Amino acid sequence: MKNEIKIFSPATVANVACGFDVLGFCLDGIGDEMIVRKTDKKGIYITKIKGFDLPYETEKNVAGVSALALIEDAKPNCGFEIEICKNIKPGSGIGSSAASAAGSVFAINELLGKPYNQTQLTYFAMKGEAIASKCEHADNLAPAIFGGFTLVKSINPLEILQIPTPDALYATIIHPQIEVKTSEARAILPTEIPLQHAITQWANLGSLVHALHTNDYDLISRSLHDVVIEPYRSQLIPHFKEVKKAALGAGSLGCGISGSGPSIFNLSKGIETAKNVEVAIRNIYKNTAINFDTYVCKINTQGMKILNV
Amino acid sequence: MKNEIKIFSPATVANVACGFDVLGFCLDGIGDEMIVRKTDKKGIYITKIKGFDLPYETEKNVAGVSALALIEDAKPNCGFEIEICKNIKPGSGIGSSAASAAGSVFAINELLGKPYNQTQLTYFAMKGEAIASKCEHADNLAPAIFGGFTLVKSINPLEILQIPTPDALYATIIHPQIEVKTSEARAILPTEIPLQHAITQWANLGSLVHALHTNDYDLISRSLHDVVIEPYRSQLIPHFKEVKKAALGAGSLGCGISGSGPSIFNLSKGIETAKNVEVAIRNIYKNTAINFDTYVCKINTQGMKILNV
Repeated sequence: MKNEIKIFSPATVANVACGFDVLGFCLDGIGDEMIVRKTDKKGIYITKIKGFDLPYETEKNVAGVSALALIEDAKPNCGFEIEICKNIKPGSGIGSSAASAAGSVFAINELLGKPYNQTQLTYFAMKGEAIASKCEHADNLAPAIFGGFTLVKSINPLEILQIPTPDALYATIIHPQIEVKTSEARAILPTEIPLQHAITQWANLGSLVHALHTNDYDLISRSLHDVVIEPYRSQLIPHFKEVKKAALGAGSLGCGISGSGPSIFNLSKGIETAKNVEVAIRNIYKNTAINFDTYVCKINTQGMKILNV
Repeated sequence: MKNEIKIFSPATVANVACGFDVLGFCLDGIGDEMIVRKTDKKGIYITKIKGFDLPYETEKNVAGVSALALIEDAKPNCGFEIEICKNIKPGSGIGSSAASAAGSVFAINELLGKPYNQTQLTYFAMKGEAIASKCEHADNLAPAIFGGFTLVKSINPLEILQIPTPDALYATIIHPQIEVKTSEARAILPTEIPLQHAITQWANLGSLVHALHTNDYDLISRSLHDVVIEPYRSQLIPHFKEVKKAALGAGSLGCGISGSGPSIFNLSKGIETAKNVEVAIRNIYKNTAINFDTYVCKINTQGMKILNV
């Protein structure tokens, strides 16, 4: 059994339009790298963090907390050192904390000979995610661990469904570098919503799941609407409407807020369209004072990847 | 081309648990029979109604109104006589008016050489359904016309999706012969619902669509929950809780209100379980003063059937 492993822990998109709080998908080429190695000394030790300034104390680090949850259950005869090379900016809305929380438990599970399945890993990772987002949720963790599209059917008991991913589906992400406080993104949501809006939303989600099963890109497009959350949270993202209009004009199948923002995601059929969408949405932000990054990638159906050490 | 046709127009279940207002399925063996024949005289004529006392005036009869909507568009060089042998009791909650509204347009379309597709027929039938239920909806019409499970993605524009039906799925229906006024069933619903309940509902609907695609009976069972509508409408159906408990105890995958009631539906894997469920729920009502009927049948994946004349 290996004593050290290097992994790629992907960025993810949660709250996919009509799938608020339940549907997510996994990105490719954008993610953190982590090296985890066994140590004789029991416990979890964060030994290196590159990229962003995050806490080294295990109990304050999401990767540390999820790892602690795992070893508390597994009780291995060793400890683990974790090195994190963070590429996903915290607060970007594409699952930065989820990548850390999921990556550490995935890597440790590999080093222990895979005693846990993906749902169990998601459960441990939720403990880490909770310290970043103040509540337990799995909508970024599930796609990071399972890959592709995932539907979190329920949190308690934790049940995650893997929804098929049509082959030609590409994501285009824009991350405007503004801060959207999670607390503000939550506070802006109503606690009650009109029944009619809820019906529209679940009709679209049912339809989207059907479309993903049947490779129906046009139906994916007709289903990617969010009448419940977007009207509120889009107010927190400057130029959201213009970005959406430009993206749809360039062929995006659908455009929405990634997670609780500020990133905006698009889905397209084929990489060429996805790149055209990138150009169109860059054009909106490049005339503003806001810095931004964009990414184009295939949907990552594998999730976590083991890299050669 | 035939001048006369005899059809079976099936009963249906709408508002399938988590699929309020959007998801329906089609029953087998329970339905109306209709004979429709061409006449030289233009127009629509209801010439015979057996079973229940319903209006003969075309404009007041749901089968008549939907037929008028069709011929207004088709402008055929003939008229049609309609005989209705009504087996589905009006007000039972298993799509009685939908069977009439859908049957007439299906039959006329056949006699005209099928100029219209199923979605167009549903559109015409909605005009008839509207006079029975005071608003246009398609959640009983769609399964009657398409068969199997259908998801009404949207009414305007009308878009209906056919969701796969697992082979061993059987329905058990109990119709307690009480009156639930549609107006009361509507008035009892809240106009706003908690966002958290909506999320639970759409997680279950997404999960149910996935389960129907993957023939996962256990997941069908875990998805057949209605946290939004049932807590209100079940109050209008005496002994609903006991029926549900008995049904689930007998192996039902899920139990809910059919349409706006008073009928209660169950889904089971295999006819034997479906019959056990029937026995269990009959036992609840047989000690009460309420008359009731029960039905056990396979899910009807064909929808409308042409019978030999």
